[in-house]
Amino acid sequence: MCTGFISVNTMAQQISLPAPKKDSKMTLMESLEKRKSVREFSDKQISDQTMSDLLWAACGVNRPEDKKLTVPSAMNRQDVELFVCRQDGAFRYDAFNNTLTRVTDKDLRPMMAGRQTATAEVPAVLVLVSDKKKFEMIDRDFCDLDAGYVSQNICLACTALGLATVPRAGMPRNEIKKALGLTDTYDVIVNHPVGYPK
Amino acid sequence: MCTGFISVNTMAQQISLPAPKKDSKMTLMESLEKRKSVREFSDKQISDQTMSDLLWAACGVNRPEDKKLTVPSAMNRQDVELFVCRQDGAFRYDAFNNTLTRVTDKDLRPMMAGRQTATAEVPAVLVLVSDKKKFEMIDRDFCDLDAGYVSQNICLACTALGLATVPRAGMPRNEIKKALGLTDTYDVIVNHPVGYPK
Repeated sequence: MCTGFISVNTMAQQISLPAPKKDSKMTLMESLEKRKSVREFSDKQISDQTMSDLLWAACGVNRPEDKKLTVPSAMNRQDVELFVCRQDGAFRYDAFNNTLTRVTDKDLRPMMAGRQTATAEVPAVLVLVSDKKKFEMIDRDFCDLDAGYVSQNICLACTALGLATVPRAGMPRNEIKKALGLTDTYDVIVNHPVGYPK
Repeated sequence: MCTGFISVNTMAQQISLPAPKKDSKMTLMESLEKRKSVREFSDKQISDQTMSDLLWAACGVNRPEDKKLTVPSAMNRQDVELFVCRQDGAFRYDAFNNTLTRVTDKDLRPMMAGRQTATAEVPAVLVLVSDKKKFEMIDRDFCDLDAGYVSQNICLACTALGLATVPRAGMPRNEIKKALGLTDTYDVIVNHPVGYPK
């Protein structure tokens, strides 16, 4: 009779990722040569280690002493936030602590897939969002540009890690914003289904 | 007495780049680890070979049979165009023919530098522009996002090639548009001074 309560307690609110190994041997040039968009995925799951490496590559910390990242951002606003959607919920990536913090226990992968229903059960969907408020005093916002940096890192890192992905922009942005608990000033920019190639 | 005429004739209108070698040995992970923005450059010039590798990495052709590039673009519009500004003029990169086509013999590097006047004589400035017209039937344009993909490739390739760069958005966009001979539907998104670190 306490199932709901137990369920909440047994569902981890925060996941500590293993430290990224960064040991893929693929050269940058080879990853550029092999980069392509892939839209079909196998059932094989992604290990926490591989996910940690992928997320670090996407927008992880590469100079901890200066709090700097693998991606530049306009005026160093570090405006892009990354969420990981899995079957068991959606999580916010904290690059500085290398953790995933649950924001919902709902499976948002079908929502991210939009009309690409065949990818509704891909192991993970990474979603990039940015808070336009970070540029409110500036005549132009750089949310999309800054998301492009992260998205390209995801494309290249998937290639180097043997994973498949494709950046997708066709999705119900407002619905996603609500599901992730984001305020109105946020924009949902692009998402990446990620899995092993079929 | 024919100086002007001779000058025009001796100034190459099109430069054929050597084929990219893609032989940098740096791994993707190492280039992510070492990526950083650098704003001071030495006087050392960039060879045509290195420039060819850099431009190929930025948005070159990685699957000639399918006319596909090292970067994705929304709906495969391939909307981002890259210009190289040098002391002797500005050139449009043609990824499919691996050529640079002159669009002006003016030195646009000081214009690209905006208030960063110390970088007015950096060996080259790469400028990314996109034609919003390519998304005119769509409720959202992806020019900035697509430029981000190319810009990140430039950041990573500079790292792997021993070059220094920083993406810059502070520049006189309308003035640059005119100087490059672009129509009003274009947007000038970001530029990259490129040289060897000081």
